[in-house]
Amino acid sequence: MLQPTADLPAFRALADHYAQAKEWRMRDLFARDPRRFDTFSIEAAGLLLDYSKNRIDGTTMGLLAQLLREAGVEQRRDAMFAGERINNTEQRAVLHTALRAPRGGGPVVDGQDVGAEVHAVLERVCDFAARVRSGNWVGRTGMPVTDVVNIGIGGSDLGPEMVCKALRTHAAPHLNMHFVANVDGHDLDAALTRLDPDRTLFVIASKTFTTRETMMNAQSARAWFLRHGTEADLPRHFVAVSTNADAVRAFGIDLQNMFPFWDWVGGRYSVWSAIGLPVALAVGPEGFRDFLAGAHAMDTHFRTAPLERNMPAILAALGIWYRNFFGCASVSIAPYHQDLGQFAAYLQQLEMESNGKRVRADGSPVGIATCPVVWGDVGTNGQHAYFQLLHQGTDMVPVDFIAALRPLHDLPGHHEALLANCFAQAEAFMLGKDAGEVREEMRAQMLPEDRIDALLPHRTFPGNRPSNMILMNVLGPSSLGALIALYEHKVFVQGVVWGINSFDQWGVELGKVLAKTLEAELTGTPSPEAHDASTNALIARAKAALKR
Amino acid sequence: MLQPTADLPAFRALADHYAQAKEWRMRDLFARDPRRFDTFSIEAAGLLLDYSKNRIDGTTMGLLAQLLREAGVEQRRDAMFAGERINNTEQRAVLHTALRAPRGGGPVVDGQDVGAEVHAVLERVCDFAARVRSGNWVGRTGMPVTDVVNIGIGGSDLGPEMVCKALRTHAAPHLNMHFVANVDGHDLDAALTRLDPDRTLFVIASKTFTTRETMMNAQSARAWFLRHGTEADLPRHFVAVSTNADAVRAFGIDLQNMFPFWDWVGGRYSVWSAIGLPVALAVGPEGFRDFLAGAHAMDTHFRTAPLERNMPAILAALGIWYRNFFGCASVSIAPYHQDLGQFAAYLQQLEMESNGKRVRADGSPVGIATCPVVWGDVGTNGQHAYFQLLHQGTDMVPVDFIAALRPLHDLPGHHEALLANCFAQAEAFMLGKDAGEVREEMRAQMLPEDRIDALLPHRTFPGNRPSNMILMNVLGPSSLGALIALYEHKVFVQGVVWGINSFDQWGVELGKVLAKTLEAELTGTPSPEAHDASTNALIARAKAALKR
Repeated sequence: MLQPTADLPAFRALADHYAQAKEWRMRDLFARDPRRFDTFSIEAAGLLLDYSKNRIDGTTMGLLAQLLREAGVEQRRDAMFAGERINNTEQRAVLHTALRAPRGGGPVVDGQDVGAEVHAVLERVCDFAARVRSGNWVGRTGMPVTDVVNIGIGGSDLGPEMVCKALRTHAAPHLNMHFVANVDGHDLDAALTRLDPDRTLFVIASKTFTTRETMMNAQSARAWFLRHGTEADLPRHFVAVSTNADAVRAFGIDLQNMFPFWDWVGGRYSVWSAIGLPVALAVGPEGFRDFLAGAHAMDTHFRTAPLERNMPAILAALGIWYRNFFGCASVSIAPYHQDLGQFAAYLQQLEMESNGKRVRADGSPVGIATCPVVWGDVGTNGQHAYFQLLHQGTDMVPVDFIAALRPLHDLPGHHEALLANCFAQAEAFMLGKDAGEVREEMRAQMLPEDRIDALLPHRTFPGNRPSNMILMNVLGPSSLGALIALYEHKVFVQGVVWGINSFDQWGVELGKVLAKTLEAELTGTPSPEAHDASTNALIARAKAALKR
Repeated sequence: MLQPTADLPAFRALADHYAQAKEWRMRDLFARDPRRFDTFSIEAAGLLLDYSKNRIDGTTMGLLAQLLREAGVEQRRDAMFAGERINNTEQRAVLHTALRAPRGGGPVVDGQDVGAEVHAVLERVCDFAARVRSGNWVGRTGMPVTDVVNIGIGGSDLGPEMVCKALRTHAAPHLNMHFVANVDGHDLDAALTRLDPDRTLFVIASKTFTTRETMMNAQSARAWFLRHGTEADLPRHFVAVSTNADAVRAFGIDLQNMFPFWDWVGGRYSVWSAIGLPVALAVGPEGFRDFLAGAHAMDTHFRTAPLERNMPAILAALGIWYRNFFGCASVSIAPYHQDLGQFAAYLQQLEMESNGKRVRADGSPVGIATCPVVWGDVGTNGQHAYFQLLHQGTDMVPVDFIAALRPLHDLPGHHEALLANCFAQAEAFMLGKDAGEVREEMRAQMLPEDRIDALLPHRTFPGNRPSNMILMNVLGPSSLGALIALYEHKVFVQGVVWGINSFDQWGVELGKVLAKTLEAELTGTPSPEAHDASTNALIARAKAALKR
């Protein structure tokens, strides 16, 4: 059995260390050490991580690195890159890193030359994308494609959607990308009403080609198309990312246009595979290869840098510090970039589906808190919405700020205002504002003393609230690739420390099974004996409403 | 001084009660009481709240109602509706409920006939919306408007945007609505590239007409327009929701097209006011009035129903039960409706800006936890993303499910599948799946015993995780109005129990002030002595990058 994390010597040492560290004020730490930024910042793969505005000192970081080492992060990392079956409950290797390795860079697993297969599919994805982008691929009436609809859910949706939105300014303006995931018909319906079937290409993304939500949407899209075209036209308007050749063929898709991936690619790590086809369509083969190269640069850093100077390891260690010692239950993501509007949603899956678990890889209980809730929204919008709670709420919520130093538009003044807000919020969380400062300021504004007394507690900020700042030069394929890989490896490191298998997701099974039963009852005969009074009442109401 | 919440007799009684209640299993509670759904569900204003899947019994709910009563919820509620200055730190009344009261229904405050003013502005908003929708209002070249761009942030953005998206199927198909909030130029830039200036109407929404982000976007939009039209054309393409007549006129807007609101309307409660102009444009005057009427129906229920049978009070009480006794740090919102995709973001502002505070209205510390983090995403998408953590993570996160019984599309089968998933998830959270059940299932699948032993802990679900189910017949103006008002009043009740002034937001001030300084340094000369080493380093990097 794995040793419980809480029993590791470094974990115990950190618990002792925390008793003092929790009293530190970051204001004082900065005042004491003018080189604090240099000590606690790191650059890799085109990203800068400034982690100096955290409640840490050199001892903290040393103990955290020791914890990672004692938990076996280095061995597990090497095992992952080597293609060992570290996804033990599903008995699979974990090789999303091989998807972005240059030619000749992948491992051989069970006699399978992973790199060769990866690059063969990548070529096919890029060729197909190039044909569609150039107008060489045409629909049934001979017109090029103007709209692409990706139908997939979870990892087959969040990755491509987030990346296409993030790389909007790098994308072909003549191809509109749409993403339909929800089994709720309002999702597909909203997309279809805007589309011309003769100029639309559907990408059906489901490894097994049996995912309930995706196949229902795919069948409805197919029926919609067949109101205009014939079955013989289907291959020009539908392609698949899947490995289930029989089902794909039966659907009416040409197997030439089925792009496979492998069981060592988890859904939430799949945007680098053929699941990234919409990305290749949007930004082109070259852009897609840059995206892979950015991630590979972060892989190389993660694989080779010592834990003390390893960006994903540092990000992971800080998360553990706040989660397991300060007791923080959530982390907020604040991208100061409008085009990263889906990034928090993407991380929600990446982090919470990977590490939102209570048992370790060997089945023993974790015993300590694991993955926090991850949430957030783009920069200045959040300031006008929920930042009130981050500044003055009763819980401490660490924040990850993300920004690009240069804009990809030419509206004057906006980018300076944006960065000023980003840096100012990080400064404000760190500094706070004590009662003396608030009183002084209100006196300078000539407020009467009784009004000052009344307002003082409301205008005081506790401060000492930690944040990370992640900067890139511009938001582009390469920097985005590196950013995603940074978080992937952060999640991996935290999973190792907690002893979790980050690559399975048994927690989604129960709801799926129950939904199948309930759907049969909603469309057929209810079985009240199978449910509680609440579920029965809900079924009865739904049946009554749907009958009308 | 207000009595601390933790000292109220009902709070102490609840703490004792919790010691037993925390051991209850909902499975058993349902098994014991076949009438549990009837006891713990309530209908009002077209909504059904099923709260039977909570870790409560009759005693719990009785004690919680008593807590609300001891905290003075009824008196504060009556004071709010009567127009008393319950926003004490800003010395203002709180009268968003008057915005949706029928003619003759508003209070008189300081000699001001609130109802008369509300309805006068409402008439103007509706008249204007009708003219634009009918094509009677034309742009500078005589063509009707096809695109409306709302420029506002926080409450001047989230409300209209969320509502317009939610009521998409009820909206005029010939008017495209756009929302620009972020000072990040990528936001405005993305909107402008798709627009024809001659057919675009900008709504500039800022009470003071000085909000930094909004005015920067408004000026950039104006400059873009003036590359096509002249200053004389501005009044046909720009209107304002504001009270600053001088600034609005100087911008080039006709004061006939300035729609005011009042200092007793907080930003996050303002969608019912002229800030709702985009809603009126999208769904028309009648739809907008239905929206107000739905909220008013919930107001009437909230104002008149006893706390024990009062939907917002019950929702608030359950939140307090989990926050202050179970220690839950966040609440997840799961709308099983694609068109409610922005609802969680809307609630983030409503809840966290209102109650994310650590001092009470009288300035004393709250002493107990206040507003939790609110987060979430639409239904089945979340299942394939972060529901893993909700089912098997180490923290308990209560969930609010929201669904409409009938769809507004005609794709067969989708709605049954959607509702089946929604009900199944609630059932799964409550039931869980114990080791015995999991073993039995795997044996039925003929798995070998050693494989069963290895998988057993991973496939076990603790269950006993609470949720609310909120159902409406269809998602329309009236039901959406009621739904928003439900949460508004929930937030109000929680604020009263915690002793908070839910209507100020001092926590946004510090960042604003620091951003002003930093923006001056980014565009002019840095003042390193004013900042910590981290902020200085970030400024230096930004300046270097922006210079290129």
